[in-house]
Amino acid sequence: FNAAMLDQPRDTKASKVRSNVTNINVINFPGLNTLGISLARIDYGPLGVNTPHIHPRATELLTVLEGTLYLGFVTSNPNRLFSKIVKKGDVFVFPKAMIHFQMNLAHDKPAAALSSLSSQNPGVISIANAVFGSKPPISDDVLATAFQVEKDLIHWLQSQFWGNTNY
Amino acid sequence: FNAAMLDQPRDTKASKVRSNVTNINVINFPGLNTLGISLARIDYGPLGVNTPHIHPRATELLTVLEGTLYLGFVTSNPNRLFSKIVKKGDVFVFPKAMIHFQMNLAHDKPAAALSSLSSQNPGVISIANAVFGSKPPISDDVLATAFQVEKDLIHWLQSQFWGNTNY
Amino acid sequence: FNAAMLDQPRDTKASKVRSNVTNINVINFPGLNTLGISLARIDYGPLGVNTPHIHPRATELLTVLEGTLYLGFVTSNPNRLFSKIVKKGDVFVFPKAMIHFQMNLAHDKPAAALSSLSSQNPGVISIANAVFGSKPPISDDVLATAFQVEKDLIHWLQSQFWGNTNY
Amino acid sequence: FNAAMLDQPRDTKASKVRSNVTNINVINFPGLNTLGISLARIDYGPLGVNTPHIHPRATELLTVLEGTLYLGFVTSNPNRLFSKIVKKGDVFVFPKAMIHFQMNLAHDKPAAALSSLSSQNPGVISIANAVFGSKPPISDDVLATAFQVEKDLIHWLQSQFWGNTNY
Amino acid sequence: FNAAMLDQPRDTKASKVRSNVTNINVINFPGLNTLGISLARIDYGPLGVNTPHIHPRATELLTVLEGTLYLGFVTSNPNRLFSKIVKKGDVFVFPKAMIHFQMNLAHDKPAAALSSLSSQNPGVISIANAVFGSKPPISDDVLATAFQVEKDLIHWLQSQFWGNTNY
Amino acid sequence: FNAAMLDQPRDTKASKVRSNVTNINVINFPGLNTLGISLARIDYGPLGVNTPHIHPRATELLTVLEGTLYLGFVTSNPNRLFSKIVKKGDVFVFPKAMIHFQMNLAHDKPAAALSSLSSQNPGVISIANAVFGSKPPISDDVLATAFQVEKDLIHWLQSQFWGNTNY
Repeated sequence: FNAAMLDQPRDTKASKVRSNVTNINVINFPGLNTLGISLARIDYGPLGVNTPHIHPRATELLTVLEGTLYLGFVTSNPNRLFSKIVKKGDVFVFPKAMIHFQMNLAHDKPAAALSSLSSQNPGVISIANAVFGSKPPISDDVLATAFQVEKDLIHWLQSQFWGNTNY
Repeated sequence: FNAAMLDQPRDTKASKVRSNVTNINVINFPGLNTLGISLARIDYGPLGVNTPHIHPRATELLTVLEGTLYLGFVTSNPNRLFSKIVKKGDVFVFPKAMIHFQMNLAHDKPAAALSSLSSQNPGVISIANAVFGSKPPISDDVLATAFQVEKDLIHWLQSQFWGNTNY
Repeated sequence: FNAAMLDQPRDTKASKVRSNVTNINVINFPGLNTLGISLARIDYGPLGVNTPHIHPRATELLTVLEGTLYLGFVTSNPNRLFSKIVKKGDVFVFPKAMIHFQMNLAHDKPAAALSSLSSQNPGVISIANAVFGSKPPISDDVLATAFQVEKDLIHWLQSQFWGNTNY
Repeated sequence: FNAAMLDQPRDTKASKVRSNVTNINVINFPGLNTLGISLARIDYGPLGVNTPHIHPRATELLTVLEGTLYLGFVTSNPNRLFSKIVKKGDVFVFPKAMIHFQMNLAHDKPAAALSSLSSQNPGVISIANAVFGSKPPISDDVLATAFQVEKDLIHWLQSQFWGNTNY
Repeated sequence: FNAAMLDQPRDTKASKVRSNVTNINVINFPGLNTLGISLARIDYGPLGVNTPHIHPRATELLTVLEGTLYLGFVTSNPNRLFSKIVKKGDVFVFPKAMIHFQMNLAHDKPAAALSSLSSQNPGVISIANAVFGSKPPISDDVLATAFQVEKDLIHWLQSQFWGNTNY
Repeated sequence: FNAAMLDQPRDTKASKVRSNVTNINVINFPGLNTLGISLARIDYGPLGVNTPHIHPRATELLTVLEGTLYLGFVTSNPNRLFSKIVKKGDVFVFPKAMIHFQMNLAHDKPAAALSSLSSQNPGVISIANAVFGSKPPISDDVLATAFQVEKDLIHWLQSQFWGNTNY
């Protein structure tokens, strides 16, 4: 594990959303198998966003390493948002399979966080990409009804996500 | 349990998305507590959609009771769509916490399904409502970055979902 | 899964007890592996019985599709019977590993139910067959003592079940 | 726990089946709560039987303390019997929720066993008593069909078990 | 399993601590796999000790077969000792992963116990051997600080355990 | 959670072993209940040691925040030591309920680590304190036999730990 280099900031400029996630889980570290835990370092450029997503198999406990973040999660039925502004040294919890996000509030400085996840294989589903960027795409009939918009808008949103893998 | 009347079609006209979900779970049937299973009947009007959503605590096994449905789910990293057209008597499975949906393909007839869920308290998170209709709303900075669109469009999308509880 | 045809009634005439169970579980649908859920359709001829049995690994949630059923389960220490008469659209739950049964009360019409089970591999142990029809048979000394009857009666009961596999 | 006296033989003469089970579980020893294990001492008079039964929530590992036992369990679909003759110092395992039994083979000597169970609350369902002695009784229509016999025989079998609690 | 001979006392003279543990678990009885339970017989010579150890994956329920034992376990934060003197027929429970021990109080007689463990693969970590006898050894800097003693004493303690496997 | 201040070094001078553990778990943050995860920040003074201990209910994933650590764990039967020297940004895993430790190798600088634990209530058992400092103490007969030393040495070791709570 000693090549993890979790102390090193990652590049966030190649990302459209100005963030970068480095995973330490069973997929790249097979020794974690059956152990029920994994990590991720998240780097945020100025105003960078770790966009709304879920981990289907893990609760996440986030510790702010650097900077100030606006973060939150939405509960299931009803859809209440619990959000907070947190800074270096603060901790926040995202319960298993709830939609959550973080954003660096600074216009001129990076931020970073270390996340602990309660599964060796937490999985991640980025909402925007899964809904508008899946391969093949979800039918525009379904999406136009779901978001209560015209199909043209759905097509345009989908075009934003083509070519992504897991942005 | 004998007032469940799961054989009765439900009204789908009051719903913007032309569908209606009737739950049989620990919230309305406390006797299911600790038993690890629950049900839902889903009614679809013509072209009705059970919009993309997740159950954070349950796998779902859907049986078509009436009509023809287009349905699918999106896997986590990468975001592949597995979809199918199914008809009366068919069965389809949605793995735990994966985004999934169904749509009635008929322009002139209702459809219905019975879903079995592997938890007495499966929970449900409707993607569009949780992202654009949470109370209070998620910051438009986060959403504009996530969906790669202008804030005006985010505001307009949010206005679609205000006033909903769990549409 | 689209060959499940769970909407089709099954033949119940070949069965001594006038019922027929169609399973949708990990044994015939390997894709259910690890997903923790399965289904069964049960058809009952006139006065047909799904005889007392247990599922060692699953709770069962039964929905009546057609007809009127007398059904129940017996608790462990003490052995109390919880029974009910249910009709089309009603739901009833059988907790994990409790002895339970159903019977079609109509002399002239079939009935049907759809059961949801909280395991991809629920297993089934038909009491009468397991006790009197196992291969090889349980010693008549044990059975005569257990049922407090003469061995001749045990032999006769056993002869009823020879040749069965899992009637 | 020091009043357990598990070394003391119990009286088996008051039992119609000439056996006696002494439980050490969460019901009489609350300190076992959440610990996932319990015990039972079983005493057998000459030709005494611990009649066919299941533990809905536990695997059982039996150690023979004294004497020679014929014991076995029946698997679920198909119903195969695994049986063996075991003596003092031998060990045998009954998998969770499988029907199993033991019998003392000696005409003139007692036997005893110590059972370890993989739950602090294993539960027990004696087959004969649950099927023929439940309160209220299971309908004779169900039982006559299940055992493929006349109702008169069912009534007579039921009369054997009335007045029992958990014999 | 019928070669278990758990009724036979084992030799305790070859052991420095005058005890001997005979395991019946998934390692020597593969049929226990997935069944969640195992056994151990423990023999104690006069003043023999089953030294402080933990089972990382199991609660232990001990039944005294012969003799009188002093036994106990230490809780985690704070470190309280729960101990008791127990005799033939008594039962005592050691919660999962707590440090525990037993000692035969008699100067002139053997003792024996039968332990039930809530895992088919409980594991065992003898404290003294794991701390002072591991291969390779733990650094003397760590141990001298931990036990608040000089390194010479650590070296001498370590020399006691070299050559042991799992004494 | 925003009073966690996990970025702040803690005082290590008041500790005999020159280390200090700050826990973020269900005991001080009840909101973690049922979520299956917790954190600890560990500060090490020069040559400071987090002495050999176990967490009975959690795997631990340690990330070095500052400095260079010698760390390791001992497996159960046989007792093999897996150790490593790690530095800022490295990650190491301690499997559930295995004895493990860390030591700051620098004579003149502090070190720090952030640990993720796979339980909201991991528990901690410091070996030296639990064995020699429990209240009331473990009998010196047991300890003298376990460590293969004279009772005088045991008494002296015990005197080192009196007055501690969980040093």
